[in-house]
Amino acid sequence: MKILIVNSNTSPSVTEAVAARACQAAGPGTEIVAKTASFGSPAIQNRKDAVIAAHATLDAIVDCPEGTDAAIVACFSDPGLWAARQSVSFPVVGIAEASFMTACMLGARFSIVTIAPTTVPQLRDLVRAYGLESRLAGIRAADRGVLESHEDPHGTREALRELVDLAVSHDAAEVVVLGGAVTVGIADELSRCSPVPVLDGVVCAVLQVQTLIGSLSNRIARKA
Amino acid sequence: MKILIVNSNTSPSVTEAVAARACQAAGPGTEIVAKTASFGSPAIQNRKDAVIAAHATLDAIVDCPEGTDAAIVACFSDPGLWAARQSVSFPVVGIAEASFMTACMLGARFSIVTIAPTTVPQLRDLVRAYGLESRLAGIRAADRGVLESHEDPHGTREALRELVDLAVSHDAAEVVVLGGAVTVGIADELSRCSPVPVLDGVVCAVLQVQTLIGSLSNRIARKA
Amino acid sequence: MKILIVNSNTSPSVTEAVAARACQAAGPGTEIVAKTASFGSPAIQNRKDAVIAAHATLDAIVDCPEGTDAAIVACFSDPGLWAARQSVSFPVVGIAEASFMTACMLGARFSIVTIAPTTVPQLRDLVRAYGLESRLAGIRAADRGVLESHEDPHGTREALRELVDLAVSHDAAEVVVLGGAVTVGIADELSRCSPVPVLDGVVCAVLQVQTLIGSLSNRIARKA
Amino acid sequence: MKILIVNSNTSPSVTEAVAARACQAAGPGTEIVAKTASFGSPAIQNRKDAVIAAHATLDAIVDCPEGTDAAIVACFSDPGLWAARQSVSFPVVGIAEASFMTACMLGARFSIVTIAPTTVPQLRDLVRAYGLESRLAGIRAADRGVLESHEDPHGTREALRELVDLAVSHDAAEVVVLGGAVTVGIADELSRCSPVPVLDGVVCAVLQVQTLIGSLSNRIARKA
Amino acid sequence: MKILIVNSNTSPSVTEAVAARACQAAGPGTEIVAKTASFGSPAIQNRKDAVIAAHATLDAIVDCPEGTDAAIVACFSDPGLWAARQSVSFPVVGIAEASFMTACMLGARFSIVTIAPTTVPQLRDLVRAYGLESRLAGIRAADRGVLESHEDPHGTREALRELVDLAVSHDAAEVVVLGGAVTVGIADELSRCSPVPVLDGVVCAVLQVQTLIGSLSNRIARKA
Amino acid sequence: MKILIVNSNTSPSVTEAVAARACQAAGPGTEIVAKTASFGSPAIQNRKDAVIAAHATLDAIVDCPEGTDAAIVACFSDPGLWAARQSVSFPVVGIAEASFMTACMLGARFSIVTIAPTTVPQLRDLVRAYGLESRLAGIRAADRGVLESHEDPHGTREALRELVDLAVSHDAAEVVVLGGAVTVGIADELSRCSPVPVLDGVVCAVLQVQTLIGSLSNRIARKA
Repeated sequence: MKILIVNSNTSPSVTEAVAARACQAAGPGTEIVAKTASFGSPAIQNRKDAVIAAHATLDAIVDCPEGTDAAIVACFSDPGLWAARQSVSFPVVGIAEASFMTACMLGARFSIVTIAPTTVPQLRDLVRAYGLESRLAGIRAADRGVLESHEDPHGTREALRELVDLAVSHDAAEVVVLGGAVTVGIADELSRCSPVPVLDGVVCAVLQVQTLIGSLSNRIARKA
Repeated sequence: MKILIVNSNTSPSVTEAVAARACQAAGPGTEIVAKTASFGSPAIQNRKDAVIAAHATLDAIVDCPEGTDAAIVACFSDPGLWAARQSVSFPVVGIAEASFMTACMLGARFSIVTIAPTTVPQLRDLVRAYGLESRLAGIRAADRGVLESHEDPHGTREALRELVDLAVSHDAAEVVVLGGAVTVGIADELSRCSPVPVLDGVVCAVLQVQTLIGSLSNRIARKA
Repeated sequence: MKILIVNSNTSPSVTEAVAARACQAAGPGTEIVAKTASFGSPAIQNRKDAVIAAHATLDAIVDCPEGTDAAIVACFSDPGLWAARQSVSFPVVGIAEASFMTACMLGARFSIVTIAPTTVPQLRDLVRAYGLESRLAGIRAADRGVLESHEDPHGTREALRELVDLAVSHDAAEVVVLGGAVTVGIADELSRCSPVPVLDGVVCAVLQVQTLIGSLSNRIARKA
Repeated sequence: MKILIVNSNTSPSVTEAVAARACQAAGPGTEIVAKTASFGSPAIQNRKDAVIAAHATLDAIVDCPEGTDAAIVACFSDPGLWAARQSVSFPVVGIAEASFMTACMLGARFSIVTIAPTTVPQLRDLVRAYGLESRLAGIRAADRGVLESHEDPHGTREALRELVDLAVSHDAAEVVVLGGAVTVGIADELSRCSPVPVLDGVVCAVLQVQTLIGSLSNRIARKA
Repeated sequence: MKILIVNSNTSPSVTEAVAARACQAAGPGTEIVAKTASFGSPAIQNRKDAVIAAHATLDAIVDCPEGTDAAIVACFSDPGLWAARQSVSFPVVGIAEASFMTACMLGARFSIVTIAPTTVPQLRDLVRAYGLESRLAGIRAADRGVLESHEDPHGTREALRELVDLAVSHDAAEVVVLGGAVTVGIADELSRCSPVPVLDGVVCAVLQVQTLIGSLSNRIARKA
Repeated sequence: MKILIVNSNTSPSVTEAVAARACQAAGPGTEIVAKTASFGSPAIQNRKDAVIAAHATLDAIVDCPEGTDAAIVACFSDPGLWAARQSVSFPVVGIAEASFMTACMLGARFSIVTIAPTTVPQLRDLVRAYGLESRLAGIRAADRGVLESHEDPHGTREALRELVDLAVSHDAAEVVVLGGAVTVGIADELSRCSPVPVLDGVVCAVLQVQTLIGSLSNRIARKA
């Protein structure tokens, strides 16, 4: 199985981190092909970045390697997701979407814990676009920029850990979704010490595309 | 991996059909253990049946075989699902829930096509309980009882095929979910000839519990 | 008029308290027949308890005494209510439902004040299932278990009084519904000293079944 | 018990019919005092009529006879209801509100069947204002003016009977509310021959104000 | 162009302030005709005031000067607006409606900052009646009566300024609407020193009626 | 006043038609500068087209001529609108948004009448993104492609006229919004012969940006 994973921003280091986590989640039988957006911004922090990222992501998916079985949009605002889905014949999931849907199968209400407060209004719009307002316990953001959080991984982790605790104790979240590609790997650590599951969008997305391929096997078979 | 699949009604023939489909979907590495509800009704056709089925399903899941990694509620009203989830430490999914969430990752709006018109109000309640009203294109039911449809599989299939076509052409459904354990196997056939994917709840549920186990591996590992 | 009131938990002392309050509310012309759930949990504190209680409650209502004119589900999560309604020809109300609907006719928004924080997510689901999210001012819970609150009635009352005040001053509640069978009798006391009405679910339910019987008299008459 | 019932339009014949039905529903122990709006329109058919009716209704309730225990707004758009409620210390209900809330305790979804198509958008707004959109199966209107329906009671009754049947068979209504003061008395007849209950707003309102008085007796007692 | 602006309360000083602001916003080519409600309350502070104001406002608009091209309801609960719209052939807007709709074209979510806490529940109802719940960031009220705020304009302004800041920093409002006719002129000052636009309802309404007249010119032309 | 109007597709003929209509609506004091998307598709008919159009539109607005006072996105899916709004300091409106908001000030519920059925799901998403689901009477589409409708203007006009009539008679629309840049000029004709206003998005957008500039004059003044 060949899965294309597209980092919607232009930072190759994020692509590498995301690809590494995806490989780990996918297991030996699956090939992960990672691509970095060929234009746009090094971090998706506002609506303008997201619009350009949507175009770059769509291009990367439409221009996929031969034999691609599925694609993942690895950016927590899922830029270009529904358009990509209409444009190719294989399944496409976004890391935000995959983690929200997975969360809904683990508990009654989920919270999003993320880094930059500036992204909160867009995350709220995203949850609403997916129709999941009534499943959302809350959104909590650390008071940090996306890029600066790269430079202080330890402080970032501690800040997120506190927000996860607040999401559980104050918002009654039964599951927490960690938002932002920069948080790759942190979810594992937080999940181990939290009373509720803490989901990593990249892991959820890799697993969900495998599920989608399986769900569609009755159709895909026909074409063979 | 050991997955417990509980048929919430008391008909062993349905359990067998469901288990066979689940085995096929799960692949060789997974053990499927099927259980029939130990009390209740031979078919879940109204709210009373569903309440008793919820209790029987919950009992069956709480009293699971040693080493169970996940459980599936194999009844299209997901009786007892959220309670079972609170009661055991492994993931539990329902076939309705799993197919709705899977459908949402395949298209903007999904339709449910099912057999008995009497179940439509409860399905509407279920979609609302999951918060997915805005993702629902519509619900269409054949004019048949659940049990009688067992006796006329060909007629049932034709009736469902027509409803799938109407869901696409009139309700703009981008995905169709086939409702009711009795429809096991029919989805494959309909999906092959439909312009949109037709999902089978049992297949979706088997794949989704595998995804949930993967998503939670960061927590499960800790306990080992 | 004969009204069956079912305590969905297995504590006879709760049944007695509920029956006493119901008799008082019903007035001399009405016979109250009280039943305790024949299986399940001594207090309904989570979704598992509620699923089993739904079955026990449904059984108790279906197996009603001859001449029953209406039934009441006396448990603040209304377990089995809609199923019971489909299963018998007389009206059935739940104490949560009856108090919510009554509250909506007394003010623009109501708050729920209850004992155990663990029940809050399920209460939120219940309000949503009844379609009344936009009428809900908020839910506030004392930080107590249901059973321990039996042992400290004075402390419980004081805790609830404070929450009622907060519901009015902070959430702009125009009516307060007191949740939980254990609160029987407390509502009267709180209502007397609160700026807004404080409703008792048992009282509301007794009065509402009388209303339902009256509303349906045009149908019931036909059968006579 | 003294209940003031206000006909929000200026037609004394409607007041009489409404009062007669209310007396019948209230039983011997209750005094019904009926008032006709002192200004406004002979039938409430549009938003302008409703605004003026709200003022007239509010005046009539504020200027109530001494010893009034509760008031009813007897017009199916409940003009001035929430304002009246804020202005007097006794309970006030509207016939639309009372029938919607009663309907919600009898079934999962209710339909409104009414006379004039011109009132449908306002009824939709009313259901939304009460927060009950998710409980509404549909609204169906006969193609008649309110006044002309007075002149052809038989034809009106037949038209409404057909709409009730459609509400049940097509919209899956589990209860039907008959809208419009002009339909007084018709509900009884339709309810007798329909598979689901058909509610009369005036009857529901009389019974609901009795319920509200009972629910508030813990407060009212204090003042004595 | 002749615009009728109706102050729904009976205070001529408010009418004057509103008319002055409207003239300033309208520019030289437009004639503003201001009317004070001929009956009702000197300030609209509860639902009773609003019901009577709706009637007075409707009367004032229906009885408009010859040649009126549009009308404005200058009261922040828009009393009688939809009824007035049905009753005359020219456009009518309310200052709350106009500012909400304008705000939605300036940012993703808006907050309302107003004077009297007693009006908050009705403002919440109003936002819901317009369907804009998902666009509302929040409502914040100073702890003042409407009339007393007239007497301390400086204190009122400072209180509102703080609330605007909280709306931006805590509720993530991207636009703020200043509620209440008494706030005329304050918006300008606050907007100058706030990070987000602060809208004045009267200004928005004057501009929106001009827009409506333009939008309808294709119809109005026909009658000439 | 200088208004930039961006045609989000790459067809210069559409740009010309849109600019001509905008000039007519704007009146003599306003300069209209029209731009065609520099990349993308000649017609925006699916989500992929819309994603690329969003990027091209955003670029065109960010790279605006000196002295631009406001911008209009002239494509009925408003591609890139909210991102453009965040990226520039002057007001930006979309023709869909402007017509929806204008429609809401003219009647209780509006319908959208458009050309291509393929765009209906995205229009539904758009109405939901703006929070206006409860104000939507319905969406009706002619059975035509966008490009072919250029070639048969008369047939297109007749098809749209029929849909407008159905929107009024069947969906109770009180206002109709004509969707799609290709319909420029048709609205005027249809509005003249329809019982309800028929709005042209380009006209609404021109008038609304003028309104926004006026509403913000208290802020803009400060910078001078």
